[in-house]
Amino acid sequence: MIDYLFRLPEHATGTLQSQIQEMMVDAITRGHLAPGATMPSGRKLAEQLKVARNTVVLAYQQLLDEGFIVARERSGFYVSEDVRAGFVHSPDTDSNIPSPPANKTDWASKLSFFPDAFPYLHKPQDWQRYPYPFVYGQFDKKLFPIADWRDCCREAAGIAAIHNWASDHVDRDSELLVEQVHSKLLPRRGIWAGRDEILITVGAQNALFLAAQLLLKSSDTIGMENPGYVDARNTFLTQTQRIELLDIDEQGMVIDERLANCQCVYTTPSHQFPTTYTMSKPRRLELLEQANKHNIIIIEDDYESEFNYGAEPIPALKSLDTEGRVIYVGSLSKTLAPGIRLGYMVAPREFIRQAKALRRIMLRHPPSNNQFIIAQFLKRGYHDALIRRTSHTLFHRSKIMKTLLDEHFPGGTQKPDFGGSSFWVRGPEGLDCRVLGEAAKQRGILIETGDTFFFPGTEKLNYFRLGFSSISIEQIKTGLPLLGELV
Amino acid sequence: MIDYLFRLPEHATGTLQSQIQEMMVDAITRGHLAPGATMPSGRKLAEQLKVARNTVVLAYQQLLDEGFIVARERSGFYVSEDVRAGFVHSPDTDSNIPSPPANKTDWASKLSFFPDAFPYLHKPQDWQRYPYPFVYGQFDKKLFPIADWRDCCREAAGIAAIHNWASDHVDRDSELLVEQVHSKLLPRRGIWAGRDEILITVGAQNALFLAAQLLLKSSDTIGMENPGYVDARNTFLTQTQRIELLDIDEQGMVIDERLANCQCVYTTPSHQFPTTYTMSKPRRLELLEQANKHNIIIIEDDYESEFNYGAEPIPALKSLDTEGRVIYVGSLSKTLAPGIRLGYMVAPREFIRQAKALRRIMLRHPPSNNQFIIAQFLKRGYHDALIRRTSHTLFHRSKIMKTLLDEHFPGGTQKPDFGGSSFWVRGPEGLDCRVLGEAAKQRGILIETGDTFFFPGTEKLNYFRLGFSSISIEQIKTGLPLLGELV
Repeated sequence: MIDYLFRLPEHATGTLQSQIQEMMVDAITRGHLAPGATMPSGRKLAEQLKVARNTVVLAYQQLLDEGFIVARERSGFYVSEDVRAGFVHSPDTDSNIPSPPANKTDWASKLSFFPDAFPYLHKPQDWQRYPYPFVYGQFDKKLFPIADWRDCCREAAGIAAIHNWASDHVDRDSELLVEQVHSKLLPRRGIWAGRDEILITVGAQNALFLAAQLLLKSSDTIGMENPGYVDARNTFLTQTQRIELLDIDEQGMVIDERLANCQCVYTTPSHQFPTTYTMSKPRRLELLEQANKHNIIIIEDDYESEFNYGAEPIPALKSLDTEGRVIYVGSLSKTLAPGIRLGYMVAPREFIRQAKALRRIMLRHPPSNNQFIIAQFLKRGYHDALIRRTSHTLFHRSKIMKTLLDEHFPGGTQKPDFGGSSFWVRGPEGLDCRVLGEAAKQRGILIETGDTFFFPGTEKLNYFRLGFSSISIEQIKTGLPLLGELV
Repeated sequence: MIDYLFRLPEHATGTLQSQIQEMMVDAITRGHLAPGATMPSGRKLAEQLKVARNTVVLAYQQLLDEGFIVARERSGFYVSEDVRAGFVHSPDTDSNIPSPPANKTDWASKLSFFPDAFPYLHKPQDWQRYPYPFVYGQFDKKLFPIADWRDCCREAAGIAAIHNWASDHVDRDSELLVEQVHSKLLPRRGIWAGRDEILITVGAQNALFLAAQLLLKSSDTIGMENPGYVDARNTFLTQTQRIELLDIDEQGMVIDERLANCQCVYTTPSHQFPTTYTMSKPRRLELLEQANKHNIIIIEDDYESEFNYGAEPIPALKSLDTEGRVIYVGSLSKTLAPGIRLGYMVAPREFIRQAKALRRIMLRHPPSNNQFIIAQFLKRGYHDALIRRTSHTLFHRSKIMKTLLDEHFPGGTQKPDFGGSSFWVRGPEGLDCRVLGEAAKQRGILIETGDTFFFPGTEKLNYFRLGFSSISIEQIKTGLPLLGELV
């Protein structure tokens, strides 16, 4: 007889064997099966759960190996007596968990600032459920290189690999990954950097945060593109309130007298965020000349430079820098997957040394197992192949997007010079993108309203962005005309 | 005939097939094999490399699949024409890489502070090569649960899992992991927290950094144990120079009038860092009472609380907190592996909301693939089993350490109340631990000198720490008497 009615969880993942194993671990660690208690017999449990007897036998073997249960000859399995050592349960049972203490502390008076109050682009968590998700920067299931990724994960789970990555690296990056960034990623952008000029970061956002902390005092002014990247702005706002807004034209960021007020400038020259304009070569040289003249540090966010199917690639600003005043930021979020959080920063070694020390007290280093896996991914050429495949796919989507946009929003878009994965659309005067966004959402179309990208108080309301990194050609063909009707 | 003399790299890892694949990708992306060039025939390459023909065939197939080479009927393989699209090489060849631009920027005048100047514990990178590494916080190859880890990695490489973790989570943690921290890790410490009171961090260090940024203005005072954890001190020093040093006695951190000066206090009650004293229950209640009275926020760093083989576990300070003023910090660095960088913070939801927003602009979230893997690791009971095995091993080492320490350093140590993985040793008056550390290193013995743990200007020189998390019983038995002689 079994005392408990065991049931496998409904939406469970994993094999039946691992589900049984987890169910029993749960019952043991939560105390439903106390130390010394008899385990249900394999045969009876199999009947109750309606699974094969062997499945239960294998799950029990695993529990035995892990020390959760013990076997006694001829009388079956028991919950191990020492299994709960180390557990400090509350006096109540789990089914009667006491509420956390009433919060009697006035946190508002205790906090030095409130990052929660910064505006940012809210993306619906469930975007995958919408029929027409013109979202930006998401990942496309169909493009993820599953076999290649598994190959690298297998390598990282080898004994020698584990010994390499599992230990405390304090502040060190994987030498293998730095070498690959040095020899495979940066040459694509015309950058030849020393290995001590490269720092691995938890995505590009982390590189921006490190740079902001090191470069900006509250008395400093930072120049930023407007419209621009909201979470870069938020990062800078944690350090200084002095922001100089720099305009955008067809050649990218406009260089004018406002630059002279800045100690630091943040720019997205490959593909201006969000307008997609590429900064022209003359504009780049002018920016560097002004930076040299006024002793300005430039933060170059080279996001999405990989998808340059549209034109000859323009080398990074960093590759034209003759005075070592450009801090270059890149990531694998747009090529491989944003969830992996792997970015890098390239800068003169004087700066990297400080950034590495700050990173040590901020988080030590990006997880070493991921550094190992991604080093393998780059080393085996999988990343190069992925860029080719993705560029090919984006190129086709982009052509169809462009044709349909010209038809349904005549004159409203400019073809990005540089490929990429989004269009910045100017709607008719008088359009309120926020109203459009809501109406579109009702009809299953997700767009990104343009207002959020402008600095508060400078919003233009008739712009919106359409991403096409996570939407199929069929969805584009039906969705865009629908959106056109709404406008 | 083969134009190039191909040679597999010397200390290479991976299969022969993957080595050949990498060698060829390298030759292609670096331009040694130009687009359109004929690939060496499989047979000839196999001869040159002295490998089986099939190994080359399989490597070429992979290159073909990835688009690096193309096949032409009856004439073999060629480097793909479009393989180098997107590469911006410098005008020079790779063997003649131009030096980075001379650094004409005065970085010292550009930086707002110099984290590189903060003192910290330097650990030799090559500690594994020393015969007697009494280092702390490192990982023991023999204890790493290789099979369990692989099991979870396999699960994370499944298609459904990848779709779950690869997308942009913006600021969200894995719900599965939060659930496991909630139901498997925190109950061990007597903490029952809501899911919105938990935040996953890139190791405990990241949790401390987030808390410091949110809580401390430059006019605030933080109380810290002295001696104490150096990189916590450094984190606080990035925010304020006002540090109140709190003494340690056998009951842990001393509560006296100095506490009233603090807006915030950082403490390691389970196992004071580095002295290993456990804060007594009366002392805990006194600390909380004073914190309530003076409106102080407490940061509880519960490091190493899992290895409580020595005594009945004392519940976390957080579990006794009636006013919601304790911020609890934990991690898997000491149990699983420091390289994985997985920690968590538990605090009232008002605070977690701000910490999550700050984390978003700092790094978004800890990598989602690791969150997924570790959720599986906890869910399947592997972490519980690992703690049991590790505690068992540490208990044995600890007993032998204690016996030998009493023999060779009579009166110099106290048995940690709470298990753990290190001893804090008081040497004879007049001993300079720095001299001892150097002399020991010459003889292959790594110890941690005690001076670094004290606030600059308050150093005591006759203390040192002996970690035993990464050293075998045999090494202990030979190494400790050797160290005794040196003292």
